[in-house]
Amino acid sequence: MEIVSENRSFGGVQGVYKHSSNTCGCEMTFAVYLPPQAQEAPVPLLWYLSGLTCNHENAMTKGGFQEHAARHGLAVVFPDTSPRGAGVADDEAYDLGQGAGFYVNATRDPWRQNFRMYDYILTELRAEVLENLPVQDRHGITGHSMGGHGAITMAVRNHGMFESLSAFAPIANPTRSDWGRKQLSAYLGDDESAWSQHDSALLLDEFGWKGDLLVDQGASDQFLDLLKPEVLADSMARRRQPGQVRIHKGYDHSYFFVNSFAGDHVAWHAERLN
Amino acid sequence: MEIVSENRSFGGVQGVYKHSSNTCGCEMTFAVYLPPQAQEAPVPLLWYLSGLTCNHENAMTKGGFQEHAARHGLAVVFPDTSPRGAGVADDEAYDLGQGAGFYVNATRDPWRQNFRMYDYILTELRAEVLENLPVQDRHGITGHSMGGHGAITMAVRNHGMFESLSAFAPIANPTRSDWGRKQLSAYLGDDESAWSQHDSALLLDEFGWKGDLLVDQGASDQFLDLLKPEVLADSMARRRQPGQVRIHKGYDHSYFFVNSFAGDHVAWHAERLN
Repeated sequence: MEIVSENRSFGGVQGVYKHSSNTCGCEMTFAVYLPPQAQEAPVPLLWYLSGLTCNHENAMTKGGFQEHAARHGLAVVFPDTSPRGAGVADDEAYDLGQGAGFYVNATRDPWRQNFRMYDYILTELRAEVLENLPVQDRHGITGHSMGGHGAITMAVRNHGMFESLSAFAPIANPTRSDWGRKQLSAYLGDDESAWSQHDSALLLDEFGWKGDLLVDQGASDQFLDLLKPEVLADSMARRRQPGQVRIHKGYDHSYFFVNSFAGDHVAWHAERLN
Repeated sequence: MEIVSENRSFGGVQGVYKHSSNTCGCEMTFAVYLPPQAQEAPVPLLWYLSGLTCNHENAMTKGGFQEHAARHGLAVVFPDTSPRGAGVADDEAYDLGQGAGFYVNATRDPWRQNFRMYDYILTELRAEVLENLPVQDRHGITGHSMGGHGAITMAVRNHGMFESLSAFAPIANPTRSDWGRKQLSAYLGDDESAWSQHDSALLLDEFGWKGDLLVDQGASDQFLDLLKPEVLADSMARRRQPGQVRIHKGYDHSYFFVNSFAGDHVAWHAERLN
């Protein structure tokens, strides 16, 4: 992997790296924050998956995670949200194609050649980071919006790969939302039976999560109708899933919301990873 | 003034506003963070002046000030760095014209009609904020790079208007730097005697600052030759100016540097304003 930039941040290093991805068939950029503790010994790793339209940079610059990660001794990795480039399929809409990978392995043309973010993150990027940076093979995962969907679906389907799980305003029930039906149909085809493996509320209802789960949601989120936190809360309560869904008065869907609760999430993961 | 956006952040409100500026002869946008304490009673106000190429948004989204301002009960105002718009003079270079107001009142064509950031901030925006938001007439000022230059020069020339002063990697000696000579010449003319009123090191040497002064500087800043922190440190030591210039190993000129020390600066100002 190649260094794009490295900046000192809270005594650690905020790096941006790129590598040639076999899984996605293109060059992929990602960011990793290494806390000061990583200079002494490998540290656990928190995955932060971003939402629609984002790349590796948004949460890295606007999420405010570094301060908390430095305090708790966690590394944080910020992957991109899709394959990118001139040779990669795309769509004019902001919510399909580049910037909108939805954390699935596409099986349909024109997407299936590059749009394999599920395997990219769980296998290729994970191996790349473990091989090249001073991090332990001990992982937590979180994300915002489409990234919250990615975090919950990946962890619940792969209990052995993650020790801790949380989400910010996740797309909770994409099989019943316009943020989901369009993308799952395009990437996976019209057979809806394949979709349930990518729906947090359905997966939690069926499998539960081995640990406890923290979900934060703004009560003034402009996308509540698309996110459907009530379906997630219902699934968790019915399953008796340990954890909490916190609804925060006045908060919207922006990074000001994510930033405000980043400290709580990093502390939550640190408690379970350290 | 008109609301552009308001987002809940750390229990307070991050607002963006615009108004028609008589001083600058154009519409101006600025951001204000109001901490939760402002819902009960007016709070003191910290001015954050940004650097070259920035507008009201950069430090608002990347500086990480809200968390600390909420803890300490300070409002923070983020002005733009210049007048803007189709009818406003500009230059192709990033460091002259729009985005590069240098916090002076220009006296030369084509700049003098709009480029009056010194008066805009000290008089017009100050009045606008005091009139429309729950803030006390009690001010601290800080800034980064060109904004650190603005903070020190404005405070040292107007002791009565500010109670506390700090800077991040200020352009400290613009009369002897390519970040300064070009702009002061364009905005104020070739008579260098007018420039000394806009040089932090010269002003501190001549007048000092009534309180103590906190300056942070990255040792790996890529612009050290243009910033000249050694001239500022020399002025302060010679003047016996209370305060400190802290040189931080490994830090560069980016917002990752500002973000890493934002908490220290907000605490510094809060101690002196509350």
